[in-house]
Amino acid sequence: MASDIEIARAATLKPIAEIGAKLGIPDAALEAYGRTKAKVSADFLASLKDRTDGRLILVTAINPTPAGEGKTTTTVGLGDALARIGKRTAICLREPSLGPCFGMKGGAAGGGRAQVVPMEDINLHFTGDFHAVTAAHNLLAALIDNHLYWGNALGLDPRRITWRRVMDMNDRALRQLVVGLGGPANGVPRETGFDITVASEVMAILCLADDLSDLQRRLGAVVVGARRDRTPVTARDLGADGAMTVLLKDAIKPNLVQTLEGTPAFVHGGPFANIAHGCNSVAATRAALKLADYVVTEAGFGADLGAEKFFDIKCRAAGLSPAAAVLVATVRALKMNGGVAKEALGEENVSAVVRGCANLGRHIENLKQFGVPLVVAVNHFAGDTPAETAAVEAYCADHGVEAVVATHFADGSAGAEVLAGKVATLADGGAAQFSPLYDDDLPLFAKIETVARRIYRADEVIADKAIRDRLHRWEAEGHGRLPVCMAKTQYSFSTDPALRGAPTGHTVPVREVRLAAGAGFVVALCGEIMTMPGLPKVPAATRIGLTDDGLIDGLF
Amino acid sequence: MASDIEIARAATLKPIAEIGAKLGIPDAALEAYGRTKAKVSADFLASLKDRTDGRLILVTAINPTPAGEGKTTTTVGLGDALARIGKRTAICLREPSLGPCFGMKGGAAGGGRAQVVPMEDINLHFTGDFHAVTAAHNLLAALIDNHLYWGNALGLDPRRITWRRVMDMNDRALRQLVVGLGGPANGVPRETGFDITVASEVMAILCLADDLSDLQRRLGAVVVGARRDRTPVTARDLGADGAMTVLLKDAIKPNLVQTLEGTPAFVHGGPFANIAHGCNSVAATRAALKLADYVVTEAGFGADLGAEKFFDIKCRAAGLSPAAAVLVATVRALKMNGGVAKEALGEENVSAVVRGCANLGRHIENLKQFGVPLVVAVNHFAGDTPAETAAVEAYCADHGVEAVVATHFADGSAGAEVLAGKVATLADGGAAQFSPLYDDDLPLFAKIETVARRIYRADEVIADKAIRDRLHRWEAEGHGRLPVCMAKTQYSFSTDPALRGAPTGHTVPVREVRLAAGAGFVVALCGEIMTMPGLPKVPAATRIGLTDDGLIDGLF
Repeated sequence: MASDIEIARAATLKPIAEIGAKLGIPDAALEAYGRTKAKVSADFLASLKDRTDGRLILVTAINPTPAGEGKTTTTVGLGDALARIGKRTAICLREPSLGPCFGMKGGAAGGGRAQVVPMEDINLHFTGDFHAVTAAHNLLAALIDNHLYWGNALGLDPRRITWRRVMDMNDRALRQLVVGLGGPANGVPRETGFDITVASEVMAILCLADDLSDLQRRLGAVVVGARRDRTPVTARDLGADGAMTVLLKDAIKPNLVQTLEGTPAFVHGGPFANIAHGCNSVAATRAALKLADYVVTEAGFGADLGAEKFFDIKCRAAGLSPAAAVLVATVRALKMNGGVAKEALGEENVSAVVRGCANLGRHIENLKQFGVPLVVAVNHFAGDTPAETAAVEAYCADHGVEAVVATHFADGSAGAEVLAGKVATLADGGAAQFSPLYDDDLPLFAKIETVARRIYRADEVIADKAIRDRLHRWEAEGHGRLPVCMAKTQYSFSTDPALRGAPTGHTVPVREVRLAAGAGFVVALCGEIMTMPGLPKVPAATRIGLTDDGLIDGLF
Repeated sequence: MASDIEIARAATLKPIAEIGAKLGIPDAALEAYGRTKAKVSADFLASLKDRTDGRLILVTAINPTPAGEGKTTTTVGLGDALARIGKRTAICLREPSLGPCFGMKGGAAGGGRAQVVPMEDINLHFTGDFHAVTAAHNLLAALIDNHLYWGNALGLDPRRITWRRVMDMNDRALRQLVVGLGGPANGVPRETGFDITVASEVMAILCLADDLSDLQRRLGAVVVGARRDRTPVTARDLGADGAMTVLLKDAIKPNLVQTLEGTPAFVHGGPFANIAHGCNSVAATRAALKLADYVVTEAGFGADLGAEKFFDIKCRAAGLSPAAAVLVATVRALKMNGGVAKEALGEENVSAVVRGCANLGRHIENLKQFGVPLVVAVNHFAGDTPAETAAVEAYCADHGVEAVVATHFADGSAGAEVLAGKVATLADGGAAQFSPLYDDDLPLFAKIETVARRIYRADEVIADKAIRDRLHRWEAEGHGRLPVCMAKTQYSFSTDPALRGAPTGHTVPVREVRLAAGAGFVVALCGEIMTMPGLPKVPAATRIGLTDDGLIDGLF
């Protein structure tokens, strides 16, 4: 089979106006970026507000393993297959970050015959949204240090500034640094650091904002630090919210591209799935729901993190009501969850598959708690044996869920046609009775405990008094109704990445909490969370270049 | 008269395809960014290589003062006026930097009735070129620190790394910092800092590269630091050049926009006029010369810096041969050069104008040294009196140069019609016998001396032995044929910003030299040069916001 990049390059892309027309978007409402990318105008989207929403379908997955699950690939394949069976469909994905592209992850635009294109553009600068987030974030940082320099009229405590800077790069040397060195002309020396752009609260805000005025309100509410008396200082106090909004005025408009099969795809926003909520933008999802009858979207990492935050943060904030969920599993990943090493994945091992299904089973149970009907998609890999696949199907049947093998990676939409039929039936069936896991008025710590007990199946949550005090202070300051954004390892239900399968009896330690008052959640960091990745010994960047024909080599 | 932004907003912009058609650019060769911006495809531009070039006209100015000279405004007005008198014309300008927009400079897209539009887009993210330069620059920086982290196989001396990071922001706190803090996982602690993006060597490279392969060659030649034995380490040694080129593959394509009067304008690239050469890209200038009969461009700061570097760096590197030059002066700026304070500029003061003409006169003499015929444009301000204007005209006549009063700021192209006629005649006359100021094979220090003596009229150039030794080492390493890029204050011929007029007898101290082996010049820093600006006490950012109608307020 050809490589992802070979397949993507061989595709003939339709003009973006033709893709827009499939959703009834008039040419005048498309702001083209080249011939195959466009932003959709805010005025046009605002004009749709009284339309009935289409059906929202979440694609989520078991806990990720190095074996690969193919969540994005399945999202694309399912979307193409829904279009194939005659449904007016749109896909909603996150934008990839530049950092991992030059590190080792490679692109993030699906794979095989289930990709969004133009893949190289999407994986590089695309329409500049991430650069706009970086600029808006760093403008606020510059205004903070400038405020200290000019006399600090707000009385900000330099030691209590929590707003860092961001860069869309894997650059570990920037994690912790001292700025303002070199004498009075260069400002006030203090410790700070850089995160990767996707970890920026501005990114989370962009992805949760209803419109430009909500965007500005949220940006203004960002808490950048505190005075000596612990009272918060916000971006609005610094007068930064207007200029930040101006920098983001185009970035908030959803980006329209297409799949290899010409299905419309909104690729927009990309908040980190650990310290943020890991979903594409509300603006894009709302646009898709107004324009299509079926909207397929995905959320970052496994269902314990991605689906939970999709439901409890994004759907709660935006008033969305998903109609169905698709839980992606692969035989290979189930084997790894069943204790097989990556090197041994090539050998048939039905009992390991069955053991690994414990992970799948818990995600099934968890998704049911949100009242959303689901189907399991077994994303087929070439080496999967019939006996292994049958074991997964049998396990799912025992747990009251249908499992469908899908071969979209190799076969495109034809390979996910059966899956699409089941999903459409499920979404049309009206069985969904969505509700988030906890109520707004539960205390913050109780919200953390609810997720830890009901989703992670932990016995207890532990946190220092300082952390509990901080949560109480935020409650007193009026932030108590916010949802919690859990940040923990994606590899396990627990906080120990080595604990695969379906661990029980574990403890969830909350090491730190952060208030994201603009985004509208409280982050609970459980375990070590990296907000600025590093590059590997041989970075992908050193293999990337242009061929003599002007094609990009080595990116994927 | 309406403000710049009011005038810009009131304009009805033509679709960019219509602007491209004026230059014979087919629709298929335009990569649209929205409806009024486009990049021109590399393939189309390559297809023009055998065409005869149009006539290149440089707009430069006397030494800048707080009174304003209007170099960009005159470039736009002259271009519009050439179009008005029936000439096929294109304008070439630099792209503005985001940093000053949020500081205090405001936009950089002309003014009054002589502007390029869409002004807000051009002043904000535009087509993302600066973000691409930032990303490419910082990718190299990340690869350097990553190389140290993984064992430093190249033997790079962490104390001798000269490659810093960049951000398109005024942020003084980043000028000097220590990275890599927090233990072994975060790399190797070392001192470094950030410059503003326009000061990046990558920006200079983008603006001097012939095409993608020349771009990659230049990026690979960038010297990032040295080993303990002083041997250089390059971006190519780190394997960074390919990925950097990929990040810049779209940025190298010229951006096409329009003036308020619909004249095609290439706005592309923006290297700093102090530590770099301060001209728009060679790619855009070449494209314009192939597509138009008259190409009007400008270079940063006064003629002592901007024109000298335009001739000695850009024209030399690209093999360009300018046909004429326009030297912009204003009565107000001449008065300031004649000793009048900004507060007293409103009063008629003919003798001060005459005194200030010494500055103008020296620029006239200097430009003649390059063999390019010139005309003086007196950019008219409302308060200029007939006697003051007559004094400038008389001075110029005495010096064998014609002076033309132009009112394009208030009147658009009609106000520069006479100027355009004179300039066209001059450019058509075949009088130009362009040659740079010095030969390639002059030693580096002698090149610095040549500029200092012949352009700045200094008596001597002084430099420590360490600086002279460094120049000799670079000569030994094969960089001796590079031109020099002078970095000094723009406010004076000397290195003392307070010395207006036409100072003589001064000394030029070379404080530091830097090798820009990728850009292809040696920077000589004379005096204090700021490569990362700071924000003022009340930054423009705090006044910027969106109005209820979605318009940008406070940006200009």
